[in-house]
Amino acid sequence: MSKEDRVNGEVIRREVMSDVFVDRALNSISEFERPMQDMAMENAWGGPWTRDDLPRDTRSLVTIAMLVALRATNELKGHVRGALRNGATKEEIRAVILHSAAYCGFPAALSAMKVVSEVVESWEAEND
Amino acid sequence: MSKEDRVNGEVIRREVMSDVFVDRALNSISEFERPMQDMAMENAWGGPWTRDDLPRDTRSLVTIAMLVALRATNELKGHVRGALRNGATKEEIRAVILHSAAYCGFPAALSAMKVVSEVVESWEAEND
Amino acid sequence: MSKEDRVNGEVIRREVMSDVFVDRALNSISEFERPMQDMAMENAWGGPWTRDDLPRDTRSLVTIAMLVALRATNELKGHVRGALRNGATKEEIRAVILHSAAYCGFPAALSAMKVVSEVVESWEAEND
Amino acid sequence: MSKEDRVNGEVIRREVMSDVFVDRALNSISEFERPMQDMAMENAWGGPWTRDDLPRDTRSLVTIAMLVALRATNELKGHVRGALRNGATKEEIRAVILHSAAYCGFPAALSAMKVVSEVVESWEAEND
Amino acid sequence: MSKEDRVNGEVIRREVMSDVFVDRALNSISEFERPMQDMAMENAWGGPWTRDDLPRDTRSLVTIAMLVALRATNELKGHVRGALRNGATKEEIRAVILHSAAYCGFPAALSAMKVVSEVVESWEAEND
Amino acid sequence: MSKEDRVNGEVIRREVMSDVFVDRALNSISEFERPMQDMAMENAWGGPWTRDDLPRDTRSLVTIAMLVALRATNELKGHVRGALRNGATKEEIRAVILHSAAYCGFPAALSAMKVVSEVVESWEAEND
Repeated sequence: MSKEDRVNGEVIRREVMSDVFVDRALNSISEFERPMQDMAMENAWGGPWTRDDLPRDTRSLVTIAMLVALRATNELKGHVRGALRNGATKEEIRAVILHSAAYCGFPAALSAMKVVSEVVESWEAEND
Repeated sequence: MSKEDRVNGEVIRREVMSDVFVDRALNSISEFERPMQDMAMENAWGGPWTRDDLPRDTRSLVTIAMLVALRATNELKGHVRGALRNGATKEEIRAVILHSAAYCGFPAALSAMKVVSEVVESWEAEND
Repeated sequence: MSKEDRVNGEVIRREVMSDVFVDRALNSISEFERPMQDMAMENAWGGPWTRDDLPRDTRSLVTIAMLVALRATNELKGHVRGALRNGATKEEIRAVILHSAAYCGFPAALSAMKVVSEVVESWEAEND
Repeated sequence: MSKEDRVNGEVIRREVMSDVFVDRALNSISEFERPMQDMAMENAWGGPWTRDDLPRDTRSLVTIAMLVALRATNELKGHVRGALRNGATKEEIRAVILHSAAYCGFPAALSAMKVVSEVVESWEAEND
Repeated sequence: MSKEDRVNGEVIRREVMSDVFVDRALNSISEFERPMQDMAMENAWGGPWTRDDLPRDTRSLVTIAMLVALRATNELKGHVRGALRNGATKEEIRAVILHSAAYCGFPAALSAMKVVSEVVESWEAEND
Repeated sequence: MSKEDRVNGEVIRREVMSDVFVDRALNSISEFERPMQDMAMENAWGGPWTRDDLPRDTRSLVTIAMLVALRATNELKGHVRGALRNGATKEEIRAVILHSAAYCGFPAALSAMKVVSEVVESWEAEND
């Protein structure tokens, strides 16, 4: 385990996902689940997310593209919020979903659009 | 069928994929395959690719992200070349593949990296 | 965008999915989601669904086969109802699901069977 | 193991895939692989394929639909040939592939179309 | 249909999944769904699960590995319980999920971890 | 980046995959691909593979199970060899593939079986 990656990962995860979200995630897990959280923090958040080879908003759009293709609806929810926090506009996020219809098919795109729409709506209600 | 979408789609496909590539694709297909090519031209190239809600290099990176997640190796090849033509750098393309390891797993990422590496190499040989 | 495909698509979608269903879908979406709905209406309903190269009940069975393989449970629900409206019998729909066990595996087949069973039951209650 | 399912399965597999194909498959496998072949013969060919709840040409189209969605290119090849032997026309097979673009995305549909086109061509050369 | 496989399959399914679970499953299905249940009982439970080429706890871990990769969350739930009944420890089950992060990506692994954690918790409450 | 994970990962990868294989992999990659190899070495080989919560032969079988479900044929090849090196018998590896037919479907299982059979054959030729 790399302590440094773990620490850097948590910093970025908090920037992208917000303190509220990360605190809730960390507080709700049991000891049993902790190694999984540590691994995600070290290898995902402390891995590619720490690299400077993509602007952070583009990285968010790329992440959303992958989650739509994988039909990972739950994880999509958090990353749409993260994309908005990273400075991607709702129109850009929608553009990725529209684009996915041609590559991943309409069932994946329509399911994703529903998630995006809900997150955008509650995001706008909070930030009015 | 929308003639206009079909025509606009071919213009963009030629810009992204090059005349050589599109001519070869169109000349190699039989009458039997034509409706499939028309549909791709109209609904994929003449659809989201004609929208102005994403810069074209970002759209290429997003496309690559989906193709890695779908493990669509053959289609990836063409779109890596398209991404380079659209102004994405090889480092940005690599960044998407590195990012995919965390979201799609290493088998998908490693296979994709091999494709990207080969396309980038032959691209650089041609453009030296 | 092709206005004609859009219009033809809505006609077929209403025939397959019922006015009630389509009205609800169209009324519940926000302006933000509209381009996605338009794209689905134009390119899916106004695309292959308008072709006469498959009888409509066979097309429904083929759609169900794809949705099971993609594990697109939500979309499956609507298309099982559409298949019944298109004249496929519940035994034929079940046959597709049983067939999927061998090709997509039992987890996909069993999940699909649960959806099919619920839709068929409520369809029969309505049409008694 | 059910001997009866095994025997019935082989009869149907020979009808759908041809004696030449099945003989080659059975002769090329080692003792080590035999249990896999037996399981496929008993549970796939001797399972849903023996049921009379779908006409055999429709069952072939449904199988192709699943294989496109699963991106199972190798298996698709054999089943396109099987579909033609089962009385499906090449236009119906193409219809399934065109339909798949909307549900499985263009990468899956385009890859499948290439396979279908090759099999149809060699089928027509043989049956002229 | 093989009556013997069907009977053997039910015996093993009851050993792995418990009488309570299997009785509930069998009692809740309609006549319409019965052929699907019979097929699962004969070909999955009465098929590989009857073979003696893997210890039963290893077979459970292998099943879990596949379900994570397929993102078959519902089926995963039952098989985590089955794995515990088959003698796999909760640490071994967690090890499979941690391992899946590298091969299937974090979204699949994190979703699976949540399911595993819930099942383990209620299993321990029952068996205290 | 964790230097320690990177070093531990390479040790294990060499034990599982053999020096010949790892040397060839490391020597064949370009500078451009190096970050991908480093990430795989650190996070996959230096991650779950370093944990002691599964015996190494079981871990290999679990890896194979995931690769079959993901249809990652290329990566499967290397890991079948790794499984044999880790002490799994060819009968156990086959058991995982047979098991996968019920969970991942026959197309995935049959493709995997072909790969396994070829690797086992060449492994036995080398180790006679």
